[in-house]
Amino acid sequence: MGLIEDAVSGNVRALAQLATHIENDDPLSHEAIDQIYPLTGNARTIGITGPPGVGKSSFANQLVRALRSADQTCAVIAVDPSSALSGGAMLGDRIRMLEHHSDPGVFVRSTASRGRTGGLAPSTAGLIHLFDAAGFDFVIVETVGVGQEDVDIVGYVESVVLVQAPGFGDTIQTLKAGVLEVADIFVVNKADLPGAQVTVKALRGLLSLAIGQYDRLPPVIAVSATERTGIEDVVRAVDDHRNWLRSTGVILRRRDKLAVNEITGQMRRLVDDRIERLVGQDSAQVVIEQVVSRRLSPRRAAEKLIAGSLPQA
Amino acid sequence: MGLIEDAVSGNVRALAQLATHIENDDPLSHEAIDQIYPLTGNARTIGITGPPGVGKSSFANQLVRALRSADQTCAVIAVDPSSALSGGAMLGDRIRMLEHHSDPGVFVRSTASRGRTGGLAPSTAGLIHLFDAAGFDFVIVETVGVGQEDVDIVGYVESVVLVQAPGFGDTIQTLKAGVLEVADIFVVNKADLPGAQVTVKALRGLLSLAIGQYDRLPPVIAVSATERTGIEDVVRAVDDHRNWLRSTGVILRRRDKLAVNEITGQMRRLVDDRIERLVGQDSAQVVIEQVVSRRLSPRRAAEKLIAGSLPQA
Repeated sequence: MGLIEDAVSGNVRALAQLATHIENDDPLSHEAIDQIYPLTGNARTIGITGPPGVGKSSFANQLVRALRSADQTCAVIAVDPSSALSGGAMLGDRIRMLEHHSDPGVFVRSTASRGRTGGLAPSTAGLIHLFDAAGFDFVIVETVGVGQEDVDIVGYVESVVLVQAPGFGDTIQTLKAGVLEVADIFVVNKADLPGAQVTVKALRGLLSLAIGQYDRLPPVIAVSATERTGIEDVVRAVDDHRNWLRSTGVILRRRDKLAVNEITGQMRRLVDDRIERLVGQDSAQVVIEQVVSRRLSPRRAAEKLIAGSLPQA
Repeated sequence: MGLIEDAVSGNVRALAQLATHIENDDPLSHEAIDQIYPLTGNARTIGITGPPGVGKSSFANQLVRALRSADQTCAVIAVDPSSALSGGAMLGDRIRMLEHHSDPGVFVRSTASRGRTGGLAPSTAGLIHLFDAAGFDFVIVETVGVGQEDVDIVGYVESVVLVQAPGFGDTIQTLKAGVLEVADIFVVNKADLPGAQVTVKALRGLLSLAIGQYDRLPPVIAVSATERTGIEDVVRAVDDHRNWLRSTGVILRRRDKLAVNEITGQMRRLVDDRIERLVGQDSAQVVIEQVVSRRLSPRRAAEKLIAGSLPQA
């Protein structure tokens, strides 16, 4: 069998190899996605996000454990920051996921969020399709909680879980633009710490004030890894959200949004390649020189370079 | 006088207003940049980056104080994260900059790094042009140290200062891809803390190993805010770097790179607008539906939508 067939049949090595091709966005990956795309749409997709330090990885680990006890297979995509400078702690956290390393029902993939366009790279969507086609019951995407990717994640998955911790974000942070609309389920992790109930109540209060922004009020669930409480409630909340999406037909809107988001990402990618080539052409040198010598503003230069050769709409 | 003239003449209110127009990328800002762009190219531009928690803001504050004692005027652009979720501590840190709030020789602007394309928004370049045209001797851009913007900053300024702190990043972090190439000057902040000399030595060792990657070995300077040491060395290092850029002619390459970077950003912005419109067209609905129903992969859909209407190169 070929690499694509092997990967779809669940061969771990083939999955890892094909994932690398998808990350590299190479021609083989385009062929692969074309082939496997009709097989997708069956996995349940969950995004996990939240600020650094709230214990997203240990929460993801618990969630995987709970899903495994219910005999569900899981692929986890851990999105690492593209930054050259941000902390090195994330990888360390993810080592906890090693608990599942000998379990063939769990596949963990760390991936960089790099990509010229910032935020969640389009390749993340490709990885979701890969694991979906390979028959995993759940595909879980965990972001590091910094930058645009936290907001982007809603465009990649069915249900977004926003993780907070006591003392984190119960006031200003949570009010920041965009965050309320992103989450389908709120989790207050480290519920064994003091202040957890305060955070839960503050979040509930905040959400009830913002109810106008929602089709459905997101539940707020306290979870403790050490006391092993709450995780079953999260699994139930994810099921509830799925049922709600389906019974109301909101799922159709969501799927549309996912498709539009991914198509747009792919269009940007295609255009980016062409922009790089346009700027690199010899004929662009004259225009660049005019900008350097302050005779032409960068925007006018951009207009000049793409004049007549851009998508009209 | 009009807003643009007022801003260029240094009127604080006009500067703030025009900065908002630039951030909004509205038509007035395009006209303004066209007008002021010929006046730019005189300010010295410094980027300050580094991981969260190393004291970038207090370092920036000291640097401004040192430059002010030498009678240099300073505009500071503090780039806040676009993320809805990341911590709220940055703004608090920046309040320290209030030390200079009654000094007409210092102008501080907080700006969001938002923007569909991620990383440092193209508007940051516009802000630099604004303060440059308004006659500030120095324009200092400070990033929060997460995400693509840390690497992007090199495309916006003449000299990049990478701030570290004892115990931070002297091992794995600093080795991460991209970071070594980004910095022209390394600063080890909080030099009064134990371990500062170890970090300085580790950085110097690392840099001397990587010398092949440089045109010039970046200096490593220990700075202490509390003990008020080192900051004069940084000012001197920035001067040295500037002189070196000029005497070697490397400045020409750097200016070219800055122009290309900004033109490319503007091109992406223009194209992004058109992509949004293309995807929103009624005729796009058929293609989107094919993706939702898994009959067409997102990439092929993107190709279909932009076929024949993209920049050829």
